Amino acid sequence: MEQIPTPARERLLALMRILEHSAEKTLSSAQIEIITGWSSHTIRKDISYLGEGQTIGSVTGYDRETLLPVIKKALGLDRSRKYCITGLGRLGSAYLNMGVLDGFELAAGFDTNVNRIEILPSPAPLYPAYKMAEVISRLGIEIALLCVPAASAQTAAEKLAAAGIRGIVNFAPAVLNLPPAIKVRNVYVTDELRTLAVRMEN
Amino acid sequence: MEQIPTPARERLLALMRILEHSAEKTLSSAQIEIITGWSSHTIRKDISYLGEGQTIGSVTGYDRETLLPVIKKALGLDRSRKYCITGLGRLGSAYLNMGVLDGFELAAGFDTNVNRIEILPSPAPLYPAYKMAEVISRLGIEIALLCVPAASAQTAAEKLAAAGIRGIVNFAPAVLNLPPAIKVRNVYVTDELRTLAVRMEN
Repeated sequence: MEQIPTPARERLLALMRILEHSAEKTLSSAQIEIITGWSSHTIRKDISYLGEGQTIGSVTGYDRETLLPVIKKALGLDRSRKYCITGLGRLGSAYLNMGVLDGFELAAGFDTNVNRIEILPSPAPLYPAYKMAEVISRLGIEIALLCVPAASAQTAAEKLAAAGIRGIVNFAPAVLNLPPAIKVRNVYVTDELRTLAVRMEN
Repeated sequence: MEQIPTPARERLLALMRILEHSAEKTLSSAQIEIITGWSSHTIRKDISYLGEGQTIGSVTGYDRETLLPVIKKALGLDRSRKYCITGLGRLGSAYLNMGVLDGFELAAGFDTNVNRIEILPSPAPLYPAYKMAEVISRLGIEIALLCVPAASAQTAAEKLAAAGIRGIVNFAPAVLNLPPAIKVRNVYVTDELRTLAVRMEN
């Protein structure tokens, strides 16, 4: 299959979310254009990267049940990946109990506080932070939710990177400096509040 | 001042974040283009909406300290807004203790569990959920962090909307159905994990 350019991958991921939340069985590229603002041409081009254009598209639109698994496969979301939670304070322990996340398996939790590890109820095994490198490598954990305080975030992120983690969801209100090969998603509450405030002005 | 179109507002907000996190005192539109992928033309056009083009731009680039307050003012981020937290379980109580959020004042917390309200340490007053409408209206709270379980999210969001809330940051893994005038930002951990997974594939 042709390598899919990054902007097309990001749009296909967004399209996947739209299909998953859509009540319609089929969506036309015109409907997708209204929802997303992308041109019909862009949408058709993105879907053409999936390499099964003839069977996916139709005059009435794209069939949800056909298109979804093809996008998942093309984006590498058809296999389960392991993630861990680093920092088991209120935020981290809230995510411990989040339950099943579609396509992602909680494999471990880490905290520097050994007492906390012993008493927290958890669906996955919990370890002291000094075992991070060994456990991440042994279990093949790829992604970490970073839930430590802002002051510890950079140090913890560097340890995760050294242990072989390839992606971090950063909940700490701190900017992480990591090698470009480590992908980071920042969940900054202030940014969410600002985005809302800007939209509310209109 | 000219009304700024929504896509330009969103780009200006992103530019504001870049400027805030930049170590450079000035940024050229060419540098911004490399970081964001927007064309220099788009960047100059967006900044022209700020209506002070002559003084902001220069041959060496945009001056950080000059541009930042002008963007904040144009986006309505120069005044403080009040927000509340609805649902004070682990996640909600973690955000209670997040400390100061630039430009946003935590004015209240709500939970159906009265016992929880009495024992939780909090920088802002906590109220039983049935007082939501009265407190939100009296204090002029504009935004809510929704931290209730998925099963209660829609009901709680409707109560917030009825109380006059204009924006919701939704942490519950549930899709909210609300009038279009209520702006919603969903923080779905699964979406963050997927975005990382898609980027890690490249």
